[in-house]
Amino acid sequence: MAKPLPISPLASPLPPLGVVRGVRLGAIAAGIRYKGRTDLVLAEFDEGASVAGVFTKSKCPGAPVDWSRESLRNGVARALVVNAGNANVFTGRAGIETCRLTAEAEAGLAGCDAHEVFLASTGVIGEVLPAERITSALPDLRAALSEDGWEAAARGIMTTDTFPKASVRQVEVGGVAVTIQGIAKGSGMIAPDMATMLSFIATDAALPSAVLQTLLSEGVGRSFNAITVDSDTSTSDMVLLFGTGKAGNAPVTSAADPALSAFREALDAVLLDLALMVVRDGEGATKQIRVAVKGAVSDASARVVAMAIANSPLVKTAIAGEDANWGRVVMAVGKCGEPADRDRLSVAMGGVTIASEGAVAAGYDETPVVAHMKGQDIEIDVDLGLGDGVATVWTCDLTHGYIDINGSYRS
Amino acid sequence: MAKPLPISPLASPLPPLGVVRGVRLGAIAAGIRYKGRTDLVLAEFDEGASVAGVFTKSKCPGAPVDWSRESLRNGVARALVVNAGNANVFTGRAGIETCRLTAEAEAGLAGCDAHEVFLASTGVIGEVLPAERITSALPDLRAALSEDGWEAAARGIMTTDTFPKASVRQVEVGGVAVTIQGIAKGSGMIAPDMATMLSFIATDAALPSAVLQTLLSEGVGRSFNAITVDSDTSTSDMVLLFGTGKAGNAPVTSAADPALSAFREALDAVLLDLALMVVRDGEGATKQIRVAVKGAVSDASARVVAMAIANSPLVKTAIAGEDANWGRVVMAVGKCGEPADRDRLSVAMGGVTIASEGAVAAGYDETPVVAHMKGQDIEIDVDLGLGDGVATVWTCDLTHGYIDINGSYRS
Repeated sequence: MAKPLPISPLASPLPPLGVVRGVRLGAIAAGIRYKGRTDLVLAEFDEGASVAGVFTKSKCPGAPVDWSRESLRNGVARALVVNAGNANVFTGRAGIETCRLTAEAEAGLAGCDAHEVFLASTGVIGEVLPAERITSALPDLRAALSEDGWEAAARGIMTTDTFPKASVRQVEVGGVAVTIQGIAKGSGMIAPDMATMLSFIATDAALPSAVLQTLLSEGVGRSFNAITVDSDTSTSDMVLLFGTGKAGNAPVTSAADPALSAFREALDAVLLDLALMVVRDGEGATKQIRVAVKGAVSDASARVVAMAIANSPLVKTAIAGEDANWGRVVMAVGKCGEPADRDRLSVAMGGVTIASEGAVAAGYDETPVVAHMKGQDIEIDVDLGLGDGVATVWTCDLTHGYIDINGSYRS
Repeated sequence: MAKPLPISPLASPLPPLGVVRGVRLGAIAAGIRYKGRTDLVLAEFDEGASVAGVFTKSKCPGAPVDWSRESLRNGVARALVVNAGNANVFTGRAGIETCRLTAEAEAGLAGCDAHEVFLASTGVIGEVLPAERITSALPDLRAALSEDGWEAAARGIMTTDTFPKASVRQVEVGGVAVTIQGIAKGSGMIAPDMATMLSFIATDAALPSAVLQTLLSEGVGRSFNAITVDSDTSTSDMVLLFGTGKAGNAPVTSAADPALSAFREALDAVLLDLALMVVRDGEGATKQIRVAVKGAVSDASARVVAMAIANSPLVKTAIAGEDANWGRVVMAVGKCGEPADRDRLSVAMGGVTIASEGAVAAGYDETPVVAHMKGQDIEIDVDLGLGDGVATVWTCDLTHGYIDINGSYRS
């Protein structure tokens, strides 16, 4: 990176973070790519922690994605090693070897199996990531682990992020108080299908990995898989949810157990918090955009339409220019191939119906919409008028900042 | 438009244009939106002209698209009316009425059926296009029609185009010399599926509309449907091919007739010329990018992969920054969901293999690639190593100019 990026105008302040019993974490400057900042993060979990994960659907995933996907089969986690600055993607045998050496080194120090270690990397693609940079830093990093290391971890995984991202909720499971706390990084190369960035969440609730997996997969569909910055999907995306069990709640064996209703809601809230922070740190973003589609022939169809709008460069540049250019919304609806009928379609911005039934709404007054477009939170509502399908997705505008950041990332 | 856009650095000079016997055309300043420039184009064809067409696949097409698609059923053309500045899209009943009034006015003047008149409009969406602006200008416009009106027509259909676009070829059909000459406009909202802009081509060859249609549909697949500027598909795209029959070649009843081989090649060349001019006038473009994919499991799969690369904002901004960031090419291959194997993939830029078999090529020297990236014509070659599927598509880079143009189009 040539110079530090200015902090996003949409940045969220870091919330007051607590601890998650059974999790200790920290960060260190390992000199992987950046100078003068932390870039290696370690989390260790007390024995008995369960884990769930969702990974990029890229056909060209990074070696750490393959490693962690393999580790997930056991459903048991003792450690997580994350580095920023080098994604260890398209690095061939060397990349696989880096993963093995890293996991074995941490396993040796923590006294666990190498596949109880999860790995994630983010940064440039195609450059060899020397394992030694990581393994030589692990002893010092381990010595400094702390239950209070969450903020350090949130900062240590940043790449083009302009602010650290974390969220926390406290709820009860079967009358026992539990905490859900997570961090995330990501600002570009953000799109489905999938996690579209790195996020690590831990809870002290006692939940088997199968239950965590169901809750995570469902929640990701409504959060990380419902955001897009630039339609590009990373080769390294990963969301992991760890459960330490330290809260000591009564056993729960099914994600459908009513005892989990508050937990599910809180987890969804943490996931959406983190996902929206990623949107709000979208490269060059100056506005957050919520696109809600209803009246589609199915939820899946609504989602395709919503994503077509959210990914349209013409829609996104219009919003950057504070232009309520609803014609481009119509264009995006029309292009995506899903069932739509020009003469039943309606479009609203900022809650004001602009167009309906194939033409501009009778008596449409642009004044409140113009005011809405000047704000930071833009709302686009589309009703296709065909069925009951609904979907909501979030994105950001497309500005000169995006070009600046991505035209010179490697220089 | 606030101010004239600077001419694209990739602009092609207008070739010396000839006439197409049986076609007279011209342009006039009808004050539809712009001031001080022509914005209404008329072409008239001698009796007996055949016609073929390809239209946007948008589910929300403009009223003129509906009109011309309907006119095409007869396969007979006497006139074409095109306006720039207002797309007559999402204008409800008023838009349909404008089409009817326009076609009827021209039919009355030309002495033909209203559905022998073809209509096309380009410009802003959602504003009523008053028919009277067009119909009142038609008599003067008709009076000035000329066989030499091609350049005037090419200029009159421009919107955000920074240079007029035309192409011409002369070949023989069954020993008889024929001309194929066309014009196009388009620079943004360019993407498949379809024509992705306006283009009108005429030939004096005597070919029935069914033969013209087969040749046009095939040629569009290799030209206008193989270009993308920003992945957005217009509601108004249209390519029409008119055949006046004035060359007097012997009858041809099948597109497979060997007598058409040179004609087919020449038509394809005209279509590709025009399509590449659109790319080279891509909003904000400073570089043309050719993406060639081979080794895919099918041609269709190769096309999806090629389009994923060509539409990736991260790939396009990297090229704008003259950065041979092949990692983003790998990302785009991985994200698109088509069969790909990281460990068989190879990527070349400027003819230099950068990565193969899952890692950077042994002894890769960046020097010639860096030099290639500084040029105006960028070549990306991807070999998936899986099968025989191939596809080639063209796009342009994504620059600050795109944001400038699209962030303030309506202001």
